[in-house]
Amino acid sequence: MRKTLGRLSGRLPVFIVTGRGLGDITRLIGLDNIGYAGSHGFEIEGPLGTFVDKDRGAEYLGALDAAERELRSAAEGIEGAIVERKRYGVSLHYRLVKPSEVPALERAFDRAACDHPGLRKTYGKMVLELRPDLEWGKGDAVLSIMGRLNAGGSNIVPLFIGDDLTDEDAFRALEGRGIGIVVSDHPRPTAASYMLSDVAEVQVLLERLIVAFDSEGAAGSWSLTYGYYEPDKEQLREALCTLGNGYMATRGSAPESTAGDEHYPGTYIAGIYNRLESEVRGRVIENESNVNLPNWSYLSFRPEGGEWLDLGKVSIERYRQELDMRNGVLVREVRFTDRQGRTTTLRDRRLVSMVTPNLAALELTITPENWSGKMTVRTAVDGNVGNTLVARYRELNNRHLDILGSGTDGQETVWLEVETNQSKVRVTEAARTRVFAPEGTFVRRSQLEESGLVGQDIEIGAAQGRPLRVEKVAAIRSSRDRAISDTLTASLDLLAHSGDFESLLQDHSHRWGVRWSRYGFEVDPGHLWISQILNLHIFHLLENTSLHSIDLDVGIAPRGLAGEAYRGLIMWDELFIFPFLNLHGPDLTRSLLLYRYRRLQMARWAAREQGYQGALFPWMSGSDGRERAQTVHLNPLSGRWIPDNTRLEQHVSLAIAYNVWQYYQVTGDLSFMSLYGTELLCEIARFWVSRCQYDEARGRYVILKIMGPDEFHEGYPGTEEAGVDNNAYTNVMVSWTLHRALEALRELPLQHHRDIRTELRLEDQELDRWKDIADRLYVPFHGDGIMSQFEGYDNLKELDLEKYRERYCTLHRMDRILEAEGDSIRNYRMSKQADALMLLYLFSEDELREHLGRMGYGWSPEAVRRTIEYYSKRTAHGSTLSRVVFAWVLSRYNREGSWNHFLDALRSDVSDIQCGTTHEGIHLGAMASTVDIVQRCYSGLETRGDALLFDPRLPTELKRLKFRIEYRRHLVEVEIDRERMHLFSRTGGVEPISIGYRGRMFVLEPGGELEVLLDREEIS
Amino acid sequence: MRKTLGRLSGRLPVFIVTGRGLGDITRLIGLDNIGYAGSHGFEIEGPLGTFVDKDRGAEYLGALDAAERELRSAAEGIEGAIVERKRYGVSLHYRLVKPSEVPALERAFDRAACDHPGLRKTYGKMVLELRPDLEWGKGDAVLSIMGRLNAGGSNIVPLFIGDDLTDEDAFRALEGRGIGIVVSDHPRPTAASYMLSDVAEVQVLLERLIVAFDSEGAAGSWSLTYGYYEPDKEQLREALCTLGNGYMATRGSAPESTAGDEHYPGTYIAGIYNRLESEVRGRVIENESNVNLPNWSYLSFRPEGGEWLDLGKVSIERYRQELDMRNGVLVREVRFTDRQGRTTTLRDRRLVSMVTPNLAALELTITPENWSGKMTVRTAVDGNVGNTLVARYRELNNRHLDILGSGTDGQETVWLEVETNQSKVRVTEAARTRVFAPEGTFVRRSQLEESGLVGQDIEIGAAQGRPLRVEKVAAIRSSRDRAISDTLTASLDLLAHSGDFESLLQDHSHRWGVRWSRYGFEVDPGHLWISQILNLHIFHLLENTSLHSIDLDVGIAPRGLAGEAYRGLIMWDELFIFPFLNLHGPDLTRSLLLYRYRRLQMARWAAREQGYQGALFPWMSGSDGRERAQTVHLNPLSGRWIPDNTRLEQHVSLAIAYNVWQYYQVTGDLSFMSLYGTELLCEIARFWVSRCQYDEARGRYVILKIMGPDEFHEGYPGTEEAGVDNNAYTNVMVSWTLHRALEALRELPLQHHRDIRTELRLEDQELDRWKDIADRLYVPFHGDGIMSQFEGYDNLKELDLEKYRERYCTLHRMDRILEAEGDSIRNYRMSKQADALMLLYLFSEDELREHLGRMGYGWSPEAVRRTIEYYSKRTAHGSTLSRVVFAWVLSRYNREGSWNHFLDALRSDVSDIQCGTTHEGIHLGAMASTVDIVQRCYSGLETRGDALLFDPRLPTELKRLKFRIEYRRHLVEVEIDRERMHLFSRTGGVEPISIGYRGRMFVLEPGGELEVLLDREEIS
Repeated sequence: MRKTLGRLSGRLPVFIVTGRGLGDITRLIGLDNIGYAGSHGFEIEGPLGTFVDKDRGAEYLGALDAAERELRSAAEGIEGAIVERKRYGVSLHYRLVKPSEVPALERAFDRAACDHPGLRKTYGKMVLELRPDLEWGKGDAVLSIMGRLNAGGSNIVPLFIGDDLTDEDAFRALEGRGIGIVVSDHPRPTAASYMLSDVAEVQVLLERLIVAFDSEGAAGSWSLTYGYYEPDKEQLREALCTLGNGYMATRGSAPESTAGDEHYPGTYIAGIYNRLESEVRGRVIENESNVNLPNWSYLSFRPEGGEWLDLGKVSIERYRQELDMRNGVLVREVRFTDRQGRTTTLRDRRLVSMVTPNLAALELTITPENWSGKMTVRTAVDGNVGNTLVARYRELNNRHLDILGSGTDGQETVWLEVETNQSKVRVTEAARTRVFAPEGTFVRRSQLEESGLVGQDIEIGAAQGRPLRVEKVAAIRSSRDRAISDTLTASLDLLAHSGDFESLLQDHSHRWGVRWSRYGFEVDPGHLWISQILNLHIFHLLENTSLHSIDLDVGIAPRGLAGEAYRGLIMWDELFIFPFLNLHGPDLTRSLLLYRYRRLQMARWAAREQGYQGALFPWMSGSDGRERAQTVHLNPLSGRWIPDNTRLEQHVSLAIAYNVWQYYQVTGDLSFMSLYGTELLCEIARFWVSRCQYDEARGRYVILKIMGPDEFHEGYPGTEEAGVDNNAYTNVMVSWTLHRALEALRELPLQHHRDIRTELRLEDQELDRWKDIADRLYVPFHGDGIMSQFEGYDNLKELDLEKYRERYCTLHRMDRILEAEGDSIRNYRMSKQADALMLLYLFSEDELREHLGRMGYGWSPEAVRRTIEYYSKRTAHGSTLSRVVFAWVLSRYNREGSWNHFLDALRSDVSDIQCGTTHEGIHLGAMASTVDIVQRCYSGLETRGDALLFDPRLPTELKRLKFRIEYRRHLVEVEIDRERMHLFSRTGGVEPISIGYRGRMFVLEPGGELEVLLDREEIS
Repeated sequence: MRKTLGRLSGRLPVFIVTGRGLGDITRLIGLDNIGYAGSHGFEIEGPLGTFVDKDRGAEYLGALDAAERELRSAAEGIEGAIVERKRYGVSLHYRLVKPSEVPALERAFDRAACDHPGLRKTYGKMVLELRPDLEWGKGDAVLSIMGRLNAGGSNIVPLFIGDDLTDEDAFRALEGRGIGIVVSDHPRPTAASYMLSDVAEVQVLLERLIVAFDSEGAAGSWSLTYGYYEPDKEQLREALCTLGNGYMATRGSAPESTAGDEHYPGTYIAGIYNRLESEVRGRVIENESNVNLPNWSYLSFRPEGGEWLDLGKVSIERYRQELDMRNGVLVREVRFTDRQGRTTTLRDRRLVSMVTPNLAALELTITPENWSGKMTVRTAVDGNVGNTLVARYRELNNRHLDILGSGTDGQETVWLEVETNQSKVRVTEAARTRVFAPEGTFVRRSQLEESGLVGQDIEIGAAQGRPLRVEKVAAIRSSRDRAISDTLTASLDLLAHSGDFESLLQDHSHRWGVRWSRYGFEVDPGHLWISQILNLHIFHLLENTSLHSIDLDVGIAPRGLAGEAYRGLIMWDELFIFPFLNLHGPDLTRSLLLYRYRRLQMARWAAREQGYQGALFPWMSGSDGRERAQTVHLNPLSGRWIPDNTRLEQHVSLAIAYNVWQYYQVTGDLSFMSLYGTELLCEIARFWVSRCQYDEARGRYVILKIMGPDEFHEGYPGTEEAGVDNNAYTNVMVSWTLHRALEALRELPLQHHRDIRTELRLEDQELDRWKDIADRLYVPFHGDGIMSQFEGYDNLKELDLEKYRERYCTLHRMDRILEAEGDSIRNYRMSKQADALMLLYLFSEDELREHLGRMGYGWSPEAVRRTIEYYSKRTAHGSTLSRVVFAWVLSRYNREGSWNHFLDALRSDVSDIQCGTTHEGIHLGAMASTVDIVQRCYSGLETRGDALLFDPRLPTELKRLKFRIEYRRHLVEVEIDRERMHLFSRTGGVEPISIGYRGRMFVLEPGGELEVLLDREEIS
């Protein structure tokens, strides 16, 4: 595990970084001893918060309010003057004010200062500020922290990085005592010792410092660390720190927490769904959800006479939470003092075993720092849970569980048995809690049995300075598990054979090591935080699918097992996830594709019910593959019921076809194609063939009343009717799918070919028709070769997004905003997410142009470019998936734009850029795609025509890329830099594989190596 | 479907065949208009039975009893005289009597005849017989049948085949009217028109007749047909006529039947187990069973005022039951007259869908032949079932189901929901019953709801001569199914989307066609009945595993889903089943091997609990892989509890290792080996390594206190201790397994190799130890190179089997017989089944001798031969698996002996040669092996060293062999006759495959052909 920065040197530097941007960086890098201050020094957050007496600040609030009013009225007549109110300060910005009018402003400011003698003036860059006249500037804060930390005899060298004029206060205070570093792109007078020119340099410095101080080198890229407690961010962190093993997952909630506004413990087993009906405003609606199971992780304590642990009610002196991604462990350390003055240090660690999918474990170490006496540890399995994480679903019924029973072995183990109330899946959670205390320690257990909850209160004699260790191991078994008899026996059996925390951890971390060696990759080491986020994204992928999920009947839910958004239903997001999985763990993809195959029958019924043939897969799929998308939804902004036409997103089946084909291309797995893949392709093809109509006038086939990926356009303006005509994405994909179905049939071994033709009753005539339609589907274009998202998109109005940007935190549900305002998004050329451009995400430009050519459409590179530009301006990125598509598509046209989209996509969950959706569950599609961009897009990797094709173009920001993929049983190590690409087949089957680079083909033998010098002109 | 013999010609010959042997043949051939008579003409069975007035015979019973007493007392003093009593006759056999004493016997006989004037004398070969003086000799019987059959104007030519002197009666009666055929190997005076020399010629004649009469040629090999109703054979037929689809199966019980002495409807879903405790004679024992589920197939009727259909209570005029294996359909046609004189014809057909695994269907056509009026059809789903098929388990608790509820849609559908009372598996069975009657027919339904049963009584107006058709379609869903929500919704959904019987049948038979094209094969057409039984055996294999079982978590139970013997637990029989499956449906084997992989954890625990390492798989395995073999069992002969040491048959894990390796050899599936196979091999290897001890004196490793396959030797004589030392089979297999584990590790792609070494913590040192043990395990020999079954086998006493043969129906449980007599089988050189010889079954002699050589043991071909002879004399064949092993092993040494064992194995289920075990479930291991003998043994097919090796030696009885196998993605058609072997790769992957024939190697390209002329000297 990673050492704390500086521990090895015996000296603990304190970093104080100003500005949100810098704060983010340090957090990502995983430093745990970072302070973080608001840009004006008042609202000092993080550990520094404990050094500021907020009560004293409160005395000044009246004066600040009055000063604010005065300054606003003064600023009113002056163009460009902006008054900004913070909690403990009022600022007057005059950057945009005509120089001639600045003196008047300054006078007004001085007047306000005089009126309120409790406030004092400070000056920043083109800003004047009034704040309480207290001695707690940044300098004071730094010195105060230093004194406190060095009190114990340590010898800390503080390090203060800042870019604001107010930071000079700290630089001055540190002269002779520490190191001040100013960030400025131009020379300026400063009390700092060093200067850096921008945020990027700060990052490099911090990373190098970590390397210097930390024997484990790049450990920083393996941790997600939080150095302070922030109640309002807790749910977001819980989602990001979810631990899982492909079978189940538990959110990273504090063990002592229960579901509420701040915390939300959630435990989910993949694929356990339950259906509930709810009456909402006069309508009965039905929802199926991945069920939140009893909380196995509850573990808390209280000293005798004290309160149960609640970080909101104690004074926190030290806080550190680290998600150790390399080992799959979540660690928290807190030192706090309660109201009675008892100081205690807590350390808890947890894992959800990657070795034994039904096991999770928790270790809690309690050290009474300045007290002795009895304490009580409470351990419980709590079945009083519902699916209540997502606020907008809370109106709906959310109690999915019946409690069947509970019990104890009379010693260390308790168990709770529940059953989902509709789907009748049983789950038993058995938990063993052990206390490790010196011999002779007083330990007494009493049973705790409340309705729906079972547990124990364990009284323990505690002694000052002596750590007490408590371990809780939980076995969780569902009636859908393989190789069990009843769930209770199976849980107790498993517990009986499970070792203690340390031995579980050892095996678990071992297994994580094996997985990382297969899935991890290296990028240019100058970008540690990028590596770190990419690792986090891979980490979540690996938590959501593993060898343990192979044996389940599950797909990958868009939000993973980290929350409850979209109710854990399976949608099209796998389209973004499988390409990465295919190249590392194709067995996983295979098993995930079977989730669809098993629901083929339901999809056939669905098609038949609508008068079509073949298979119509649902937009939202849960237990049995029935359509789970709603038919109406409530607009929370308007309170109106609106038809929900998302089930018209029948393109989900095209994503399935694409996934089948990609899997086959990467693996060459004919056995899969014989048993499942070809049948899926053919039945999907059949659906679309029956969905097509022949348009006599055009002499082409058309697909009417459909929805593409862009959910803003459920229909045409001025009509209630659902669907648009000839969505370009859909029509091209249908044509492609028909060709692949035919190709799959051709490639099957003769016997299997014959069998499947017999079983599906596929006559030559039908196949001829597929071919005909594939070649003659209509694709709409407008202007000068711009592919129309759908027929008539170019006739819509333009939307002025800026108009709305100020009023709404996010525009990603522009449709709801307009609906609430009586307008409709249907009227505008504005897409929620990439739609036509998806084609350039799924196919290389070469392949796509070739395919369109076969359909009779020439599409010049210039027209492609124009199309990209056209939609770049008209996409709201209301889906996290949109940014990755743009990052990908732009990578060959607009490197900067591409890179920015990539960075946005990278930050989207860690910084929750969608204004608060990540706490409901991370976005696995975007996560996987960011990794995939680095790997496939930047290397130009394609798998088609039985070859592995490359065309590397690294972005300026990356110098080197190294990863390992599995292709047709070869384990290929790929290393790419600006000049060359090096491939090494570590082993492989008997057959060599074909490698392509820009039309040149090479053969890679098993065990062979290949070095390709990249074309010069591409190096930039 | 097969036409009845002769229907096309308009003339219906009657076959009357005497002697059990001949009767069996005709039954197997599938002729439905065969009569079958006891060898003395008295006890005429089958349809002839209806021509004999048994009441008249009964008048003579007193006289027969008295005559019997007299003859017995007369015979007492005369050595070799045997009195045999049949129901309607007393025979006096004098074959063994000294000629000088025969006159005295004849006198005694004459006296008895005089005392009872109602009886008359008849003469046979060395036999004198008294029977009632009635005019119903065989001649009379034939004429009577003829008269009856020709009454309707048909013109039947009777054909009588017989070998006994009493048959002359019939030959004489037929002169000028029909055809008499005598079977005799020497000329004799006869009234017959033709002569055949033996049973084999009879068979050929019958088969040729079928071909001549039947337009579908060899259809006879696709049917198992019964031409008459035999209550005491009903349960046997039910087992043989079980219909299944790999997911579930239903025994071939008549729809109107319920569980009792005559019938036993049983429905089983693979892998649904439940555990019950029972108190038996003071002990509590625990048993896990594959649960008999509610009977979905109940469908009966009664005319108004009549009784519910019961074939035991009506006069049957015509009866025919046919298992149509080609289409997977069971058909029954009965014409009968009830006590009120109503004659009715019934026809029912049933299927268990091969397309939709959760569907079964039944069609019943009722034609009132001479009556009109109301009738009531009763349809039900009956949950009042237990596992009561096996008589010796009936003392045990057998009620596994709780009834959860039942209901109806108020129209055609009813449903019943149950849950296993320990393992808590839910099952819903929903059944829809439809009546197809002419418009205007009176139809009224009433609900039937009793405790545990739900159904409907449907009153229907019936009219003379007008067939009424009733269809019942059942949807059966378990909570362990994939892709469902709750079982009730899923069942009703499925029913709602299911077509009628005819459309289900069409799809179903289509799918069977596809399966047969892959699994079927052809043997020399002169042996129709062999083909027929082989088809039956393949049919049962295909019923027990299919694409539908791939997604389950199941193994193949020894007795299939056709009954309840061994409680449906999984044992080592897969060792005999997988070799055939591997070559036709390797995906099935792969999935079945996962049953073991999923229970690896339990096997690890089991090893650890006994102080060993690695994995110890259980002898009997059910739901969770815990050992389910009993620790004691009750000897029904002695009433004593005896320790059951079968759990010492730890060699089951060696079978698993063998199966893993064979699968890998056939498929080359490295993905399986990486994920599962190698781990299984290594953990099994580890167990045995920890099980070995080093014997200083010998300088070799030994394995003590173990049991081999032979269950007669659980220990040494004179001791209660369990286990013998150094079982040769075990020790050699352990050595082989260690080598394979090492080889698997070597063959894994480097990355996977590294991963598995890391995960299992396999250090070089441990692998070195494996190698050392593999090369230095001790193998016991005695005499002149005879491999000892175990150390000390040669010191045991010889057993005189003949002594017991007369007293017991079967000697296959010789252990129990001796125990009851105060002796012990441990004392004797007598094996229940092949043990050491198993090695020659699993390996070719070449491979085995090579392997032993590596272990330091030379074993000459002569010593091999001596070993085979040694055990041939000392094996009781108490297991059906034993005969196939001997058939295999002897095939290269003793063709006749081999062929006889093969024929016995073929007949073992169809003729139930184990004295009544088949009705409890068919013997899948023996079934698969018989097929495998024809395919692999006779072709000398081996898959090792990455090559497909052949060494054909057809038995004299077979002229040609043709089949199709899947080997490393090639579909290879193999045709072998006496002179050449022809291979054709119909398609295949990219890689050519290696073919070997006696050391010569060839390459078979994808799509290529290969013809090998077989060595001359081998043609005989």
